[in-house]
Amino acid sequence: MIRSRLLCPALVFLGVFAPAPAIAQSAVPRPDAQASAVRRWREQNEEAIVRELTTLLAIPNNASDSANIRRNATLLKQLFEKRGLAAQLLENGQYPPAVFAELRTPGATRTVVFYAHYDGQPVVPTDWATPPWQPTQRATPAANGSLGVIKSGAVNGRFDPEDRIYARGASDDKAPIIAMLAAIDAMRAAGQKATVNLKFFLEGEEEAGSAHLTPILQKHKALLAADAWFICDGPVHQSRQAQLLFGVRGVMGLNATVYGPSRALHSGHYGNWAPNPGMLITEMIASMRDADGKILIDRFYDDIVPPTPSELVAARAAPKVDEELRRSLLLGASEAKNAPLIERIMLPALNLRGIKVGQVGALANNAVPIEAEASFDFRLVPNQSPEKIRALVEAHLTARGWYVVQAAATPAERLSHARVVRLDWEGGYASYRTSMDQPVSKAVRQVVSGTIGRDVIALPTLGGSVGLHDFFEVLQVPLITMPIVNHDNAQHAKDENIRLQNLWDGIELFAGLMTKLGPAWTGVVP
Amino acid sequence: MIRSRLLCPALVFLGVFAPAPAIAQSAVPRPDAQASAVRRWREQNEEAIVRELTTLLAIPNNASDSANIRRNATLLKQLFEKRGLAAQLLENGQYPPAVFAELRTPGATRTVVFYAHYDGQPVVPTDWATPPWQPTQRATPAANGSLGVIKSGAVNGRFDPEDRIYARGASDDKAPIIAMLAAIDAMRAAGQKATVNLKFFLEGEEEAGSAHLTPILQKHKALLAADAWFICDGPVHQSRQAQLLFGVRGVMGLNATVYGPSRALHSGHYGNWAPNPGMLITEMIASMRDADGKILIDRFYDDIVPPTPSELVAARAAPKVDEELRRSLLLGASEAKNAPLIERIMLPALNLRGIKVGQVGALANNAVPIEAEASFDFRLVPNQSPEKIRALVEAHLTARGWYVVQAAATPAERLSHARVVRLDWEGGYASYRTSMDQPVSKAVRQVVSGTIGRDVIALPTLGGSVGLHDFFEVLQVPLITMPIVNHDNAQHAKDENIRLQNLWDGIELFAGLMTKLGPAWTGVVP
Repeated sequence: MIRSRLLCPALVFLGVFAPAPAIAQSAVPRPDAQASAVRRWREQNEEAIVRELTTLLAIPNNASDSANIRRNATLLKQLFEKRGLAAQLLENGQYPPAVFAELRTPGATRTVVFYAHYDGQPVVPTDWATPPWQPTQRATPAANGSLGVIKSGAVNGRFDPEDRIYARGASDDKAPIIAMLAAIDAMRAAGQKATVNLKFFLEGEEEAGSAHLTPILQKHKALLAADAWFICDGPVHQSRQAQLLFGVRGVMGLNATVYGPSRALHSGHYGNWAPNPGMLITEMIASMRDADGKILIDRFYDDIVPPTPSELVAARAAPKVDEELRRSLLLGASEAKNAPLIERIMLPALNLRGIKVGQVGALANNAVPIEAEASFDFRLVPNQSPEKIRALVEAHLTARGWYVVQAAATPAERLSHARVVRLDWEGGYASYRTSMDQPVSKAVRQVVSGTIGRDVIALPTLGGSVGLHDFFEVLQVPLITMPIVNHDNAQHAKDENIRLQNLWDGIELFAGLMTKLGPAWTGVVP
Repeated sequence: MIRSRLLCPALVFLGVFAPAPAIAQSAVPRPDAQASAVRRWREQNEEAIVRELTTLLAIPNNASDSANIRRNATLLKQLFEKRGLAAQLLENGQYPPAVFAELRTPGATRTVVFYAHYDGQPVVPTDWATPPWQPTQRATPAANGSLGVIKSGAVNGRFDPEDRIYARGASDDKAPIIAMLAAIDAMRAAGQKATVNLKFFLEGEEEAGSAHLTPILQKHKALLAADAWFICDGPVHQSRQAQLLFGVRGVMGLNATVYGPSRALHSGHYGNWAPNPGMLITEMIASMRDADGKILIDRFYDDIVPPTPSELVAARAAPKVDEELRRSLLLGASEAKNAPLIERIMLPALNLRGIKVGQVGALANNAVPIEAEASFDFRLVPNQSPEKIRALVEAHLTARGWYVVQAAATPAERLSHARVVRLDWEGGYASYRTSMDQPVSKAVRQVVSGTIGRDVIALPTLGGSVGLHDFFEVLQVPLITMPIVNHDNAQHAKDENIRLQNLWDGIELFAGLMTKLGPAWTGVVP
């Protein structure tokens, strides 16, 4: 995925509760017979599954560590081959190879690709309770977030499902990879068969920004041809239930600098004569967005596509988290008169990331500052592009008397315009959303719901941003994000971990798709 | 003067042009015969005057250096006694003594006090081109601000009047003290006599905040009794012309903290749901002041006393600096549609000292920040008190739905109010203004104008703030600020200096007042 610094953490913060306990579940789920068979197999093979996971986790996986990255890739290729799949490394010169594997299903008319990445975020080893590539089993964390006691192995072949394995990449994304492999084993052991062609694509530099992914995708277009991709990245819902995500918002960043006097001035002598850049930027910001979340930029909402009926129904069926979130965050209210979070993220957003002007508190001095900066991120929805947003913002400001520059304003520009703003645009990308009404979307929801024994949470879009738009531009197939790891996994941070129950659930989820998706999608058993 | 950190630098920044050249003077002044006689005496005694100045400057004068402070005070007492004045140290326990001296004039019906301070700002000696208490004579600075060459002494008894003496306290305020002493000598040598009773009050801890001045003033009320005080502090006008200041604005500071979510949130997932404290404070600030300088706080201007006709006439007669200031500061316009600076400072002001929320530029991250701070200073005019301003601000915010707290908001307060703001008020004080229409004001303007040979610049108020209000509360006599030192004197900074022409002009100005004020004021020659 073609990523910038804007999007790497997109899937990280879903768990604002971390390490708080999960939202209580309301009813006992009833998985179908196929899932129950997978579960029985897993219960008998927990030690082997965890051993495969910890072996993989023991190999350092920073994308810039090419020797270890290759060790990871080689092991992954071997793990597929051990199961009889045709596997290969998709080489890309000096950059990390992708691992590709394939399992053809005779008679299947649909092909799906399971995507995950095997590289991990950089680490600061001294921050970790135990070394990041020394996989460590611990009991469940305490309510205050402190780590559980270190444990060693299973008891009578079974692990406490609340135990966790700590290591870099445990959740992001090595556990999903192990779940894919175990799902193949479970399916076969339970005498089940795949009903779609299966492909696996494991990226090796996602956490480094996927800067060289597109050439790999383009070069191997035929090999990677499919009818859908499943993005097995990110965490499940805060309620610990599975969720399917049918889209992401786009993003773009903006830094604005407004000029005041060329030297700081005494506020007593010049304070209501010299224009104050803090006041100017305050007025500018207030013209762009109100404090209740409404974007005031001229024509900003003109092209927005409203949510479809299916999207609204799905969104409203998701667990209600608003009240608990507000309490946990000490918020007296949320924006737009407490409108539901799930509906808010279907709209575009303008977030003020920061303002910097002068000084406050003990450092404040009686001066008119020389300039003011504000930083914003926009979240985009379908039919909005970074280019369009940029044009709207610049037209909005120009219409309000601002002289817009793209680099440091010259003295002549400052002297000839009362309001000068420098706009520095960051790279951004559009949103991605796939229709919840198309056959694959309906089939996936049906299969996953049957597998977990309840209606799966299906969100029209993630509030955050992942570069799926650019991914889609190359692949031209529907992308469905299908997370399995716990929301409180400390992804990207120290002490990253996977909760074993999430790994177990992931095996059932993937095996369910492998064996039941074909007929659910086409009505035909291959 | 009872001061806080708000006011110490009040007189410092008058010279925004420093070290740029002074604004060109328009006509050759014609001092009167009395001033000419003083000038002739000075021209014959420059070396002795400078020797007395450098002897005083060689004694370190940090208010906390009690041994050297006492050496300063003792020398000053001796310098008055040498001239036959009754002098004494007004002791105040462990704190720096004030130096008091008196010269009674038989038949005089008016008494004036010349005020200055002999302590100086703390120094960082390594920053200085030459040591701060090793007085150094230099030629005039270059146009780019670099110091002139070091010179040594006079040529045929005369100094280049553009030469400067560098030392801590050179301008702030030891040169004015030497000018007072030399004025007495000049007056006598020219066969002139004082026409008012003269008192001198030299403070020893002004730069340390004058924290113990009020007890001295109260204890010696009878000794200090007078009809007017002349505050010989601060610099002359940027045009290098003398100026008289009849008032100062008051000041008060405010730090406001607005609360957002209790933890930073991912802006994609929660960005238009969780209230953004930066947006909230933006809206709050915009409700208090517009970007053009108008204060929008409810009823803020209700009690303002408009400038008197004399004040307006005097203000409009002052040299026009606006255009040159705007150019020098790269400003396309100034506030209130380019209204004159001199008129703007007669109004109250609200300056935004700073905003701090989140991060900008390369440090910005896609998060909803947890809180936002803004810092303000108010500049007050007659009939406004800090208490009144505080009440107005709190009522204004409350009326707009803000829940105002005076300390960290509790979780319960945050949960029960959508908009919570913490207000931290700094100490402040009211403005001081003395009528330009009273006899002493008219007499001083007339005498000084005659002495300098042109209409003296007479400003109804300084834009900045000095604690004259509290000073007046104790003394209950008119205070007129009467600076003599150059505006580009690097006051409070490294390489403080006095331009010799300013010292010469100061001697003439003080001698003129000593000898001509009585009849100008009362119509009677004592």
